[in-house]
Amino acid sequence: MNLFSKDIENLNDLFVHQLQDIFYAEQQIVKNLPTMIEKATAPNLKQAFSNHLREAERHVERLKQIFEMNDAQAKAADCPAIDGILKEAKDVAGEARGKEILDAALAAAAQTVEHYEIARYGTLIAWAKMLGRDDCAAVLQQTLEEEKAADKKLTKLAVDQINLRAA
Amino acid sequence: MNLFSKDIENLNDLFVHQLQDIFYAEQQIVKNLPTMIEKATAPNLKQAFSNHLREAERHVERLKQIFEMNDAQAKAADCPAIDGILKEAKDVAGEARGKEILDAALAAAAQTVEHYEIARYGTLIAWAKMLGRDDCAAVLQQTLEEEKAADKKLTKLAVDQINLRAA
Repeated sequence: MNLFSKDIENLNDLFVHQLQDIFYAEQQIVKNLPTMIEKATAPNLKQAFSNHLREAERHVERLKQIFEMNDAQAKAADCPAIDGILKEAKDVAGEARGKEILDAALAAAAQTVEHYEIARYGTLIAWAKMLGRDDCAAVLQQTLEEEKAADKKLTKLAVDQINLRAA
Repeated sequence: MNLFSKDIENLNDLFVHQLQDIFYAEQQIVKNLPTMIEKATAPNLKQAFSNHLREAERHVERLKQIFEMNDAQAKAADCPAIDGILKEAKDVAGEARGKEILDAALAAAAQTVEHYEIARYGTLIAWAKMLGRDDCAAVLQQTLEEEKAADKKLTKLAVDQINLRAA
């Protein structure tokens, strides 16, 4: 949020603020995933990141839809959380020597991103329902399910392959 | 990680680096929770944060134990992710007008913190097992279960009370 953002006076304001926050986060994810795809060396990990890039692009479109459903402008608010999570991913990737270690670090970083999104979408859905907007909740639920599935796939990939190669 | 941190050459280095990261994160959580306890207005939310403060203090002690079990120095690495997550919590709390809205924002922020920790401890446990350190994995598992339980309690509290009051 910048200095000129308006105060949050009710649950609807809070909901829209959090939409702006995750809108920024999804855009940053779309911007950063190509580098992660490029850096990853295990073909399955590259593939998982590529699939998630397409998902994240869909999530951005869904968020635009939610803004529209709320007669709110599709606008991104600063989100220091995702900036920090992505900075940490870059830092650790920069320090990892050897492709197996790099892959393990990248997979772990991606799961941190997924969990940030799982927390945020979970809250947004709860607030949408509380505001009587089951229609918005249903759209957000699709994204939440995809985030959870992406996290599970990454866990399986890490345990079955990535960590084994790194050990 | 600072400029003088050593390269991450194997899975053990990566494990220790992530221990340092979550060690810093838990310390920041311990440092920031008293402000969240003070700001929260719903007695149950205050109580949930107080309980979690005691848990986080235990998690710091457990991490020291894991460092010892690995003959590694208990040292904190910079963790831009938790810094960003906590900055975002402060920003939104600063903009929330009215105690009900503030409580809803604080509960959501706390769940983002929980999810960061769930992702990190999940990875640490997987890596500990891969390194043949089931003893470390078992200690870390206790913390992971507490983080998951804290997240569930916050969800229930938010849905049953906090969000209702904010709506």
